[in-house]
Amino acid sequence: MSQQVEVALPDGRAYPILLGDGLLGSPALLEPFAGTQALVVTNTAVARLHLGKLRASLSSTEQVDVVEIGDGEPFKTLDTYAAILDELIAKRHNRTTTVVAFGGGVVGDVAGFAAATYQRGVGLVQIPTTLLALVDSSVGGKTAVNHASGKNLIGAFHQPRAVIADVALLATLPEREFRAGLAEVIKYGVIADAAFLAWLESHIEVLLERKPLPLVHAVRRSCEIKAEVVADDEREQGRRAILNFGHTFGHAIEAVTGYDQVLHGEAVAVGMIMAMDLSQRLGRSTTDAADRVRRLVERAGLPTAMTVDPAAMLDAMGMDKKVVDGRIRLVVCDGIGQVTVTSDAPPETIRAAIAGGR
Amino acid sequence: MSQQVEVALPDGRAYPILLGDGLLGSPALLEPFAGTQALVVTNTAVARLHLGKLRASLSSTEQVDVVEIGDGEPFKTLDTYAAILDELIAKRHNRTTTVVAFGGGVVGDVAGFAAATYQRGVGLVQIPTTLLALVDSSVGGKTAVNHASGKNLIGAFHQPRAVIADVALLATLPEREFRAGLAEVIKYGVIADAAFLAWLESHIEVLLERKPLPLVHAVRRSCEIKAEVVADDEREQGRRAILNFGHTFGHAIEAVTGYDQVLHGEAVAVGMIMAMDLSQRLGRSTTDAADRVRRLVERAGLPTAMTVDPAAMLDAMGMDKKVVDGRIRLVVCDGIGQVTVTSDAPPETIRAAIAGGR
Repeated sequence: MSQQVEVALPDGRAYPILLGDGLLGSPALLEPFAGTQALVVTNTAVARLHLGKLRASLSSTEQVDVVEIGDGEPFKTLDTYAAILDELIAKRHNRTTTVVAFGGGVVGDVAGFAAATYQRGVGLVQIPTTLLALVDSSVGGKTAVNHASGKNLIGAFHQPRAVIADVALLATLPEREFRAGLAEVIKYGVIADAAFLAWLESHIEVLLERKPLPLVHAVRRSCEIKAEVVADDEREQGRRAILNFGHTFGHAIEAVTGYDQVLHGEAVAVGMIMAMDLSQRLGRSTTDAADRVRRLVERAGLPTAMTVDPAAMLDAMGMDKKVVDGRIRLVVCDGIGQVTVTSDAPPETIRAAIAGGR
Repeated sequence: MSQQVEVALPDGRAYPILLGDGLLGSPALLEPFAGTQALVVTNTAVARLHLGKLRASLSSTEQVDVVEIGDGEPFKTLDTYAAILDELIAKRHNRTTTVVAFGGGVVGDVAGFAAATYQRGVGLVQIPTTLLALVDSSVGGKTAVNHASGKNLIGAFHQPRAVIADVALLATLPEREFRAGLAEVIKYGVIADAAFLAWLESHIEVLLERKPLPLVHAVRRSCEIKAEVVADDEREQGRRAILNFGHTFGHAIEAVTGYDQVLHGEAVAVGMIMAMDLSQRLGRSTTDAADRVRRLVERAGLPTAMTVDPAAMLDAMGMDKKVVDGRIRLVVCDGIGQVTVTSDAPPETIRAAIAGGR
């Protein structure tokens, strides 16, 4: 049972997201996307659980090297990036090689950045193993590493040849990480599809039980929404900014907590609550909409508040990429399924929304 | 007296190369290309001689920061790249900033790579201060750093907003570096324009005296040829490979000599002699053509031979980017102005050409 979402790129190119339950392990799976050389970038936990299946799917590739990187956000650094490049060079990968990013968002982002810049760009296949990476990193072509001063400050746009979205890989995901991924799924409902948010409200329990069919639907709808938003805006000049709903707050939460306390999805969950609070204070959104988002976040087992210093948060937001000429651009909600990017929010209102979300 | 070459990009974009004698220092010069923030990347020698003029040309930019990097190929590293990123982040440059690469090829390549990847890409203005950078790096959008195992193994494609080609900056260039730049100029004649090669043969003395008018002509014609070759091949899939004439040998010479003995242009000069030797051995080119190239290289004060170990050279060429699936692709000459890319040269013939060029 395999489905496919085609992701169109502005220049006419496109790549497929192959969706299904139990795709990995099939021998021919990666043959259309990998040539004679491949470097698999993964982490120890994923390698232990699933590397055998990946090797089976790479059986037609002559040279398969594997590099394991540290697990989690603290390893999304230039040092890890350099270690991947060292491996590509040591094993003499040429410019027709394929980097296979096999893991969560950290693996995808840092391996993607290595693929974007090794010999000025080689092939990339993304095989996300977390729900967050499935619905967030599969579409958009963003690759990045963090800097001590901020998240994703270094990176490139680099589109994959294909994404393998196998929900069977999610069976082994720790509960906390699975729930964190649901934050991004909920985001797609809030920003673009009220019907999808309603579907999530009625399916959140079966999703938490990781039933394959609803999972494939949730991943598919999330990827479709993101692909539609990104399609005519590959380089994030306009509409794509709505995907940052909850993320400017979320990135600041991650920055002030040092990237090691809070999962990205948890920070986004709290960031969405802050963004809904701000939307209400600006008179854009209703109490009812904010309450629905808060309830769904709670039912997904995600935090709705976090102890952070508003002053430190505002300072961290000043270094966020979404600042244009000194003004903070934020995504606010005009009702479920509709959002707007604005630079008009006064700092004191932003501060109140942060304080409200603590 | 300012001339302009428009460099067309495949997606319909374009950027100007502004050519002239004494352009820098004019107050309005960079206003169309830089906004409210700029980071100048330069080296100590260039800063001492010319930074005042650059600041005058950036007078309309509110925040101008300057970072000086080490001079020469040994500093074209991920460490230098990271230091530039640190400066961009420390001074809170946002995604509308402009990186101004003010120096030779090393500054251009590493500052360009930082511009390509800071916040996934910010503006770039190239102001080359060496002849090599003027005729080589101004067109093509290549940015890169070296790895201990090979040159330019890490990088990205990133097109500048503009290139300022001011031949007045060449007046202070050390003689050896100026001559090294002439190697690339000669290359353009060999690969694409027999009339230009003949012009070089009759103007090599005035060029060596650095007379502005012939210099502007040589730079302009070199940039035009490169722009024409690159125009329909931004990502180096086909014809662009002819620009590597002499470079696969040259890069190997630099690798086996450790990047600190030989200037890039000197390595290319010897590489061109080896490539002409190979072309003769393959029955493609005549003794006369090889002799003309050798004489012109000699008259430019460039080396025509170098003591290198052929086995080490061949090994280094195996790690060169121009290897596709294990075969060495080389550019050979079919007569002045005409070259072909071939993977057919037998290793023993390549070895003989290397030995012949020692």
